[in-house]
Amino acid sequence: MQFDVGVFGATGYAGREAVRLLSAHPAARVAFTTGRATGHLSHEEGLARPADAYLLALPHGVSGSYAETLRASFPAAAVVDLSADLRLPTAAEYATWYEHQPPAPALLGQAPYGLTELNREAVRGARLVANPGCYATAMALPLLPLFAASLIADDVIVDAKSGATGAGKGPREELLFCELADDFSAYAPGRSHRHIGEVEAALFAATGRRPSLTFCPHLLPVKRGILASLYVRSEHPAAAIREAIAARYAGERFVRVVDAPPRLSDVAFTNDCLISVHDGGPGRVVVFSAIDNLGKGAAGQAIQNLNLQLGLPEAQGLVSSGSVADVKSSTVPWGLRRDGSSAPKPPGGVK
Amino acid sequence: MQFDVGVFGATGYAGREAVRLLSAHPAARVAFTTGRATGHLSHEEGLARPADAYLLALPHGVSGSYAETLRASFPAAAVVDLSADLRLPTAAEYATWYEHQPPAPALLGQAPYGLTELNREAVRGARLVANPGCYATAMALPLLPLFAASLIADDVIVDAKSGATGAGKGPREELLFCELADDFSAYAPGRSHRHIGEVEAALFAATGRRPSLTFCPHLLPVKRGILASLYVRSEHPAAAIREAIAARYAGERFVRVVDAPPRLSDVAFTNDCLISVHDGGPGRVVVFSAIDNLGKGAAGQAIQNLNLQLGLPEAQGLVSSGSVADVKSSTVPWGLRRDGSSAPKPPGGVK
Amino acid sequence: MQFDVGVFGATGYAGREAVRLLSAHPAARVAFTTGRATGHLSHEEGLARPADAYLLALPHGVSGSYAETLRASFPAAAVVDLSADLRLPTAAEYATWYEHQPPAPALLGQAPYGLTELNREAVRGARLVANPGCYATAMALPLLPLFAASLIADDVIVDAKSGATGAGKGPREELLFCELADDFSAYAPGRSHRHIGEVEAALFAATGRRPSLTFCPHLLPVKRGILASLYVRSEHPAAAIREAIAARYAGERFVRVVDAPPRLSDVAFTNDCLISVHDGGPGRVVVFSAIDNLGKGAAGQAIQNLNLQLGLPEAQGLVSSGSVADVKSSTVPWGLRRDGSSAPKPPGGVK
Amino acid sequence: MQFDVGVFGATGYAGREAVRLLSAHPAARVAFTTGRATGHLSHEEGLARPADAYLLALPHGVSGSYAETLRASFPAAAVVDLSADLRLPTAAEYATWYEHQPPAPALLGQAPYGLTELNREAVRGARLVANPGCYATAMALPLLPLFAASLIADDVIVDAKSGATGAGKGPREELLFCELADDFSAYAPGRSHRHIGEVEAALFAATGRRPSLTFCPHLLPVKRGILASLYVRSEHPAAAIREAIAARYAGERFVRVVDAPPRLSDVAFTNDCLISVHDGGPGRVVVFSAIDNLGKGAAGQAIQNLNLQLGLPEAQGLVSSGSVADVKSSTVPWGLRRDGSSAPKPPGGVK
Repeated sequence: MQFDVGVFGATGYAGREAVRLLSAHPAARVAFTTGRATGHLSHEEGLARPADAYLLALPHGVSGSYAETLRASFPAAAVVDLSADLRLPTAAEYATWYEHQPPAPALLGQAPYGLTELNREAVRGARLVANPGCYATAMALPLLPLFAASLIADDVIVDAKSGATGAGKGPREELLFCELADDFSAYAPGRSHRHIGEVEAALFAATGRRPSLTFCPHLLPVKRGILASLYVRSEHPAAAIREAIAARYAGERFVRVVDAPPRLSDVAFTNDCLISVHDGGPGRVVVFSAIDNLGKGAAGQAIQNLNLQLGLPEAQGLVSSGSVADVKSSTVPWGLRRDGSSAPKPPGGVK
Repeated sequence: MQFDVGVFGATGYAGREAVRLLSAHPAARVAFTTGRATGHLSHEEGLARPADAYLLALPHGVSGSYAETLRASFPAAAVVDLSADLRLPTAAEYATWYEHQPPAPALLGQAPYGLTELNREAVRGARLVANPGCYATAMALPLLPLFAASLIADDVIVDAKSGATGAGKGPREELLFCELADDFSAYAPGRSHRHIGEVEAALFAATGRRPSLTFCPHLLPVKRGILASLYVRSEHPAAAIREAIAARYAGERFVRVVDAPPRLSDVAFTNDCLISVHDGGPGRVVVFSAIDNLGKGAAGQAIQNLNLQLGLPEAQGLVSSGSVADVKSSTVPWGLRRDGSSAPKPPGGVK
Repeated sequence: MQFDVGVFGATGYAGREAVRLLSAHPAARVAFTTGRATGHLSHEEGLARPADAYLLALPHGVSGSYAETLRASFPAAAVVDLSADLRLPTAAEYATWYEHQPPAPALLGQAPYGLTELNREAVRGARLVANPGCYATAMALPLLPLFAASLIADDVIVDAKSGATGAGKGPREELLFCELADDFSAYAPGRSHRHIGEVEAALFAATGRRPSLTFCPHLLPVKRGILASLYVRSEHPAAAIREAIAARYAGERFVRVVDAPPRLSDVAFTNDCLISVHDGGPGRVVVFSAIDNLGKGAAGQAIQNLNLQLGLPEAQGLVSSGSVADVKSSTVPWGLRRDGSSAPKPPGGVK
Repeated sequence: MQFDVGVFGATGYAGREAVRLLSAHPAARVAFTTGRATGHLSHEEGLARPADAYLLALPHGVSGSYAETLRASFPAAAVVDLSADLRLPTAAEYATWYEHQPPAPALLGQAPYGLTELNREAVRGARLVANPGCYATAMALPLLPLFAASLIADDVIVDAKSGATGAGKGPREELLFCELADDFSAYAPGRSHRHIGEVEAALFAATGRRPSLTFCPHLLPVKRGILASLYVRSEHPAAAIREAIAARYAGERFVRVVDAPPRLSDVAFTNDCLISVHDGGPGRVVVFSAIDNLGKGAAGQAIQNLNLQLGLPEAQGLVSSGSVADVKSSTVPWGLRRDGSSAPKPPGGVK
């Protein structure tokens, strides 16, 4: 099966990554792209183009109304919105966290939240999916099984560090090479960060619990990757926390528990989320969660969702680094597996 | 007054920074340096050279015995040991955290812990000073007034990020440019990190309280700087925490409370520690503390201590970025003040 | 068709890249890897393993004798040696440039020089191929058609800049992150650099001319990529130089002439060599040539050669960035094409 | 003596560096700064402020008319214009290279070209100085003595690499961290680059010869520094070229000939220009010239000129790295000497 896909916002970092991944996807054909540079359609032209699928990598506040138009014009098409416009379930929650009205209120609650490993079946049947944010993905994946099993207390501290593609491509002075290189700092500390709203809503929907997150994002002088360092309180030892996460994702290709703290380089250019768990002293456990913010945190997960919506193998066209056991000690230490090939290729000759 | 100083270990990053700072110090004359490259004395040759002062920037486990020799040979000289060998008060504590016997047990407890703003008077009268570690400096400065006034609970989470000079200059594969660039990760999570022992001992000596630290160091792809993100529990609002820290360091040139989260670039090449305080949600306060790990975290603080030991102005030869109010809004936004000049130079013409 | 391949030296940067590429190669199965870390075979174990193909990514001076052993043990297997050991045609030339005797003198002149676009037919029939060096590849590709048609004078200046993976993974102080970051310099200027010997031999073999190269390599604070800036003297205008290169590589997928000076990011993670040509003032033309030193400069070209040796499509498993016209102005600007898929996927919807 | 100085354009990289240097200058008092951020005066306000000296770090095309105003309002004040507006001797030459009319034609030829080591006496007597560009400084210093003594042929190739502060602080997409990091390329190749005009005019004025430069600038992923690799033709050996440059700058503190190719880190944060000379094959010599583009290439040289205009010691407030012999082999390898202190501090104890 082949499918035609239009990518809106292909000049931004997430849209560009989507095009890059789709170009290597065995079933995808990029039918058109929209953007602000020569060679791209205008967004309006794109809205008139029939296709099997659409990826919306447009700014927050704009994307939602495009989703509405596409739903109306091409009801059979699969649409994934990478913006935040459709992630919250109600207009009230949206207004609380974003401090303005949602751009597409009628669609709120209509599009499943595309954290694939959480909502796989809902995504499979949906025409429109709200793709999660990068921070929320990194946080929610380890926290979901812990809250679901009531293994940890409600107050969780998340010290998150993101590469600069997460801040977008708009030319702002503070994002210049000469400003960011050699530097590091937190931003937006203590403010009600919209990512808190998104992840709390997702955790509540899935577990019925409303955690109390302290969330501090930091900006790294790297291009790609998020490392979230989570400090949780628990009566259980780190081993039990680790086991709960590992059990929850036992069958998953892209979410894996590893022994050593994951590095950004372990997940760069992949769709993986690597998680490690460590003792943090009495009553305290430390959990690290690493993703590529453009991969599992944006374009990769969007394609993972699109695959499901279109009835394709979920991992088709996506890259995984293999288990970290492989990464650290196998004969194919850095081998990347690009799915879509017929069968796994287990390395032979392992001692 | 002029003084002659010998620098041991001048080929390492801390020793090199010490030489750089001393070369611009109006009263200092670098009498000799030791190190493993052409043009340096051997350590043994250095031990036989009379001087007014010595800085020991040698590896842990080696430095302490050099301090003993210098104390015996030149009892009138001022000595600052930048290693960890003399920082803990007892051999038992040393053995607990370092898992081997201390190299100079007779000196333990004899050298004041040179966190200058804490132990200024003891440093002034001492011939031998144990210079604090970089992580401990970044953590202890904001925590001291909070524990002293019992404003926070004992369990403190420290998510610390350090530049790579903190890992030293020994050629190890994991410190290669091609390994570190574009990357980021935690290391030694959950293990009883020796920096915990150092900071807990300092806090206990100063406040009588023994905190319970969860300490996670991360390695940044930058050369210089430490940012420690501290998550404390408190019944008091962030404003009260901020005020307590500001009041404690009201007269200090190098330790200052600022409004926005400090950047590494704010403290790079300075002797400053910049601290900011933010609301972290119910019962939670976030404190950021930034230093240059080679400045206030090593060579800068060593010279600050040396100045006191020699009866010189404490800030002589050291660089401060000015108050952040200056940095952000004055007419001399990035002006660095190098002390030792006769008088402050207030910028004129401020609107 | 599937083939089993053993990779020697898989812990180095070139060997690691080879494993990464082979893991995504639709016909390749990595049968074993050798290296100095857990999970790899020893080199000796590898020499006893039958396979369809072998890649030797071992240090210069070691690799050649492994090639001899493999040729003797498995005469039907395809072998590509990525080292410099077999690149020069005679022991005399080897001794001139390397200042010691060649490790495998009997093989000199037996293995075709695997600059694929130059020696495609020889490579196709060979069991053993000498893979070119990264600098030589970047220089030789633009120079070959110019010398062949006698369009330029013999004296050519090559100002080359390489990413740090080109310096290898051995832990040396000058390759530490804290030494290389923020820095830049030339190295080995004016000395008879072995890359000159390699490229002069290749040009002589192909064109009968012996150029007089001034070659200055510089080390960039980036991981991947080589940009060679070539300054040639010519009576012909830049347009004629450009046309000659473009005509020579008209049918080539991986060697392409572009309008703007190529960036390292245009070729990173690809097997491409992008070349641009510019007027340099009276009688002078400037040619830029960019490759990924680990791609076309090492592992990529090795697999390109291996494909030919094994009768597979030459581009299988390799990545191209598409024409620069695409890169700059098409609807799929950054789309990477990974060959091995059934058919090209022309982007639709171009305005 | 103390002097009051106003800095125009203090929010740009050159202006910011000027303020940083002046803040550590023992005789300078920053009277005011102008710029586009809170805390700075507007440019118009600055023009009305009396001061002893002014530094104009404003964009090309704007700066010249400010120089005119200041000359008229405060004829006794010393003014250094860091822009290109006053560097060319005639309006015709200006129009040729800049393709528009000069902003202050009446001042052309009135302000000496402030390449200090070339025009020291003219600068000393001038109220207005045209500060050289960074590329021109790096090129002209080694070329001047070679053309003056007719040691080299007219055709010179300059392959220059600059840090990104040279591209300014205006937020443009191509200067974003995510665009520049890990990347490298040439820009403006083959076009008549304005820096050629500047350096050719300076060389003609000083030597009566008009060279034919091929000049290719490249953009490095570093903040500070320029390395110019010059390829000259000469009948003389490299040793004679080296000797000619060394003899010309024998008494100079900031321009020095060194043995190994200079690194950007050798000159970063200094006012130095380090030059090395190497054999480049028959009839060819390679010359490397390294400066900090914000130091000797902009703010540092501006202050060097200002010192002369004001009758102060030329090196006051400026930093030198010491001779490279010191840097590589003395007991004070990385010692920076900040002038203004009473006397040199020779390191003792050298073996």
